[in-house]
Parts: sequence; structure tokens; C-alpha cells
Amino acid sequence: MTTRQPLATRLREAMDSKTKPVGALGRLESLGVQIGLLQQTLTPNAERCELLLFAADHGIAASGVSAYPPEVTRQMVANFLEGGAAASVMSQALDVTLKVIDAGVAGDANDHPALLNRRVAAGTANAHCSPAMNGDQYETAWRHGTELGEIACSDVICLGEMGIGNTSSAALIGHKITGIPLASLVGPGTGLDAVGVDRKLEVLSQAAARTPTPLAPRDAMIEYGGFEIAMMAAAMTAAARRHRLVLVDGFIATAAALHATALAPEIAAALVYAHRSAEPGHDHLLAHLEATPLLDLRMRLGEGTGALLAWPIVKSAAAVLRDMASFAEAGVSGRT
Amino acid sequence: MTTRQPLATRLREAMDSKTKPVGALGRLESLGVQIGLLQQTLTPNAERCELLLFAADHGIAASGVSAYPPEVTRQMVANFLEGGAAASVMSQALDVTLKVIDAGVAGDANDHPALLNRRVAAGTANAHCSPAMNGDQYETAWRHGTELGEIACSDVICLGEMGIGNTSSAALIGHKITGIPLASLVGPGTGLDAVGVDRKLEVLSQAAARTPTPLAPRDAMIEYGGFEIAMMAAAMTAAARRHRLVLVDGFIATAAALHATALAPEIAAALVYAHRSAEPGHDHLLAHLEATPLLDLRMRLGEGTGALLAWPIVKSAAAVLRDMASFAEAGVSGRT
Repeated sequence: MTTRQPLATRLREAMDSKTKPVGALGRLESLGVQIGLLQQTLTPNAERCELLLFAADHGIAASGVSAYPPEVTRQMVANFLEGGAAASVMSQALDVTLKVIDAGVAGDANDHPALLNRRVAAGTANAHCSPAMNGDQYETAWRHGTELGEIACSDVICLGEMGIGNTSSAALIGHKITGIPLASLVGPGTGLDAVGVDRKLEVLSQAAARTPTPLAPRDAMIEYGGFEIAMMAAAMTAAARRHRLVLVDGFIATAAALHATALAPEIAAALVYAHRSAEPGHDHLLAHLEATPLLDLRMRLGEGTGALLAWPIVKSAAAVLRDMASFAEAGVSGRT
Repeated sequence: MTTRQPLATRLREAMDSKTKPVGALGRLESLGVQIGLLQQTLTPNAERCELLLFAADHGIAASGVSAYPPEVTRQMVANFLEGGAAASVMSQALDVTLKVIDAGVAGDANDHPALLNRRVAAGTANAHCSPAMNGDQYETAWRHGTELGEIACSDVICLGEMGIGNTSSAALIGHKITGIPLASLVGPGTGLDAVGVDRKLEVLSQAAARTPTPLAPRDAMIEYGGFEIAMMAAAMTAAARRHRLVLVDGFIATAAALHATALAPEIAAALVYAHRSAEPGHDHLLAHLEATPLLDLRMRLGEGTGALLAWPIVKSAAAVLRDMASFAEAGVSGRT
């Protein structure tokens, strides 16, 4: 092995030389190589992880597309900060630093000292009948997300979200960028029954009919986006450009990844899709992105909870590449 | 809710009251309830984890059933102790205490101070042509495994193994206990090619023909077992009876679980199948046990590596049940 070989080849050889049968660590091996390529080293690090959790409200919630009332976004932000939410408890259990960002929650600003205030507005407009945001708001969200992605200095960045109505936003963004039929992307979200899903599809079909299909990524976000989704897309782009590994959570985070990779395809090298959500539209977006997620635990909560559970897998993959002995180093015999 | 209700009902209600849509944490919710039932509490703990890694040799390796020579078992024990193996590196990364047990490695005893010497013999006899062990050896392995399972005081116990030839042993045990055709249970193990798998199936078919099918679990272990497999079965039984959650690794650990649950069906309540191995026979054993593993990462290494990756999921599930706020506690609105 000479250093003239491409790093990808040297990484694959390093992984194959470890004291295990070639391929026996399955997905961990390709993941280790991905991290090595991203960090441009044979000894990558994935020792620290943080979760950026973006919250915002959606005007379309007023059109009856969610099982929960819009004030839950604001109440859940308080719950994140007080440590009672799934994202808080799991961040703590898995030694992940949690940062909660108000990207545009309805009502007045929450002045909790631990909350990062990056409010674009007090929620989006109702995309049922008008663009969710204007161009200036999109640029503001993108600027805040970029800054947050740039200052995130952990090796691994999880991205999560909270926003009543945001499966509707994600379905519309996905439909407008990919052309996948809306009916394939609309699901129960937080728990609509069949009648509720029919009603949601009707509302979203009316919303989609306002504009041509497909739309450019920027237009799709302006027409149907959420501030938290735009900010996640910007944060993952910035973090990827700084060679951080980004763990993409579920349906809504994947809509953000769809937007981000449509604008900057090269950042896909830094993304790992953490889990397959039980929200049915997620499968269609993952297939479009040719992504195979690490986990399938039938979760559909968001908040970055799927990304959090994928983090120990990523940590292990980097450690395997960095720290395992080779057959030669350990004096272990090879194949007969 | 009154305390007169069965604990299972109270656990389900507690999980449903948490600040998330009912069912939105998917598999984590049933896992949390399982841990609560095992520990008989609404506030379970899964804060500490240890890996018991049992190594032993198999006489049948002399019949050419593995891609690697038998001395690799001994070399890998040294590698575990020196920190260079996958199990060592991943235990370290995931904050799991690793205990390496010599259950019967060929050659002289290794006197490394960190190695737990529970040697039954210097490897089993060759099950191709004679019983792998005698009744006394089985009892000795069971006694050592029971003691190790009893003194394992972490909330969660991972069980792993190393032993050249032990996919052959696991396939034969699985075949003799369940009656599943041997051809469904024989696979490449550490990496045989198609010709090698055919040869392995031929050897194992001859070995299986020595005895009737099915066999009682004890007889199956005596005829075809490994000391590490018998010891794992005993350790998981003892740990389960002390209300420890046991993470069962891949194909070989599942053969141990098959043996253990055939003898003591009630311990199944303490077992969690960590991952679906790429070794093809694993699917058949999991189906027989009606088990759905947590992970599917196409791994096939053993050493407890799949169990290790499942541990943060278990830790998170317990934390969710114990620490998440309810809707009432957090002041979050319910469904509309």
C-alpha cells in the first residue's frame, strides 16, 4: 500500500486489514469509510455529538391538518428546555449536547436562557392559500441555519425538528421537488385517523394546486416550507462543508435534506440517514434519494430521536476504523 | 389509574401518557415496557451494561468447516485482552465493561490477569464423529455460566462468543432442537465460499446422522455443543432470573438462547434479540423463536458486537419510561 493510492482505496484496505473477516461488520464498515473520507483521514473521530433541534409553527395548521393544536409547538419547546421531552431524555442518556432553536414559534418570544432565539417570524403564513414565507424570510432562515451549522463543532451533528403541521410542509416540499404524487407523501403525522388523513390530503392538494409542479427547491421552500425546515437545510449544508457528519432524522429532516442536496449535491457525502420513519411518505423520499437508513424501529416522533439512536452506531464505526488492530499488528492468522 | 391494575397495564398507560403521540416511539415503547415488567417498576434503570465474551475451541474445526485455522480462537482472546478486537473497541466506545472468559480454548491456559479462566477442557471433541462433550463437562460449563450470570450486576448483560467452528456447532444445535433442515442453518460463517459451504454441509450432515432428530436440549448440547455456547446459555438463564435484561447477539448466541429457553421458557421475558445477522441460518432460528431483532446492519462477526450496538437503544427505552414528562406534568395540550 502506498500513499499514492486514493484515500478511498486506502480506507477500504485499512478496514479489510482489521482483525475480523472482510465485510463481517456489515454497514459499520462502509460507514467507517464514509467518515474517513469526510474527515480525510485513516483515523477518523466521532467522539462528540450534538443535536440541533429547530422549532417553528406552520400557518397551515389552522386548516385542520394535525391531530394536535398549534400551541403544542410552544409547549414542547418549554418541555425540551425543562428536560421532559423524548429528545431531552435521550440526549442525556446518549451523552449528546442538545441545543434548542426557536426558528419561528407562534406568539411572543420565549426568553428561556437556554433557548437560541433565531425567530424569523411568529410562524409561517398558511400555505393552503398563500406562500408560507417570502424571499427575505427564506434568506433569513438560511443565514441563521448556516451560522448554526458553522458553529456546531462536534464531529457528528444530529438535526431534529418540532412544529405542529410540519408533516404537511414536508409532504408539499417533497412533492414539489420530486414530483412524487402527494397521496404517497401524505400520512397520519402525529396520529390522524383515516378520515383525518383524507381531509389532510384534500387541503394539501388544494395548496399544491396554487403552483406548478415541479418547483425549484427555493420556490418549493418559500411556497410550502417551514422556518425550521429551511434552517435545518442550511445547517446541514454548512456542517457538511465543515466536514461534520450529519445524521438526518425522519420524514421532515429528510425533506430538508432533499432541499439541501438539490441545491448542493456534493453535501450528500456528509449525510447519513438515521432511520426509516413509520410515516409512510418517508420511504418514498428515501427511495428518491437512494438512501438506506441505519435503523428501522417504527418510530415517527421527530425531534431528532431517530438521529440520536444512530449516533452510537456512527461512533462505533469510526472507532473500529481508528482503533482496531490489523491481523499483522495483533499476530492473528489469516484465512487458510 | 389505581395500583390495583396489573403492572403491564400501568406501564402501558405510563408510556402512553408521555409527551409524544401514542406509539410514536415505536419499538422503544414496547422495549421500555418489557424492562419495566422485568424490573417490576414504572421507573426502570438501564444505566450500566457489561459484555460477557466467552471463547472456546471446537474439535469439528479439524474437519475443515471454517475459513480460518483453529489457532485464531486463542489469538483473538489475546486481541480482546489487548484492546484491538472489534468487541474491545466497541465496548470502549459505548462505555460497556468487557469480561473475557476462557470457556475452553485449545492449548495451555492463558495466564493474562484480565482473563477469567473457566476452562472446561482444551476445546471440545470433534462432533463429526463423537459427542462434543460428556455430561460432566456440560454440567461444569453450566455451573460456570450460572455463576458468571449471577455475579453480573449491570442492568443489561450482553453475551458474545468467539470460537473457530462455532457456526457449525450452532447449526447442529439448532437443527437438533428445532428440526429445521440443516441446509437452512449452514452458511459461510467467517467467510467460506460456495464450495466451502457445500463441504461444511456435508460434514455437518454426517455429524447429524450420528444421532436421532430431534434431541432433547441437553443431549443436543452434549453431542454438538461448544463450551462457550453452553456457558452462554447458563449465564443468560441466571442473569434473567436475577431480572437483568439480556441482549442476545447473533447466530451462535441465538443457538444458546434456543437451548436456554427450551429448558426454561420463562426466561424469554428477559431476552432481547439485538440484531439480525447476515449468517443465513439466523433468520430461521429467529423465526422459530418468534423474535424480531432491533437492528439489521448486515453484521456477522459475533463477539457480542450486535448486542453492543443495541445497548444504547435499550438504555434510551428505559430512560424514556423513567424520565419523560407526561402531558399533565409538562402542561402540553392533548389531541384536538
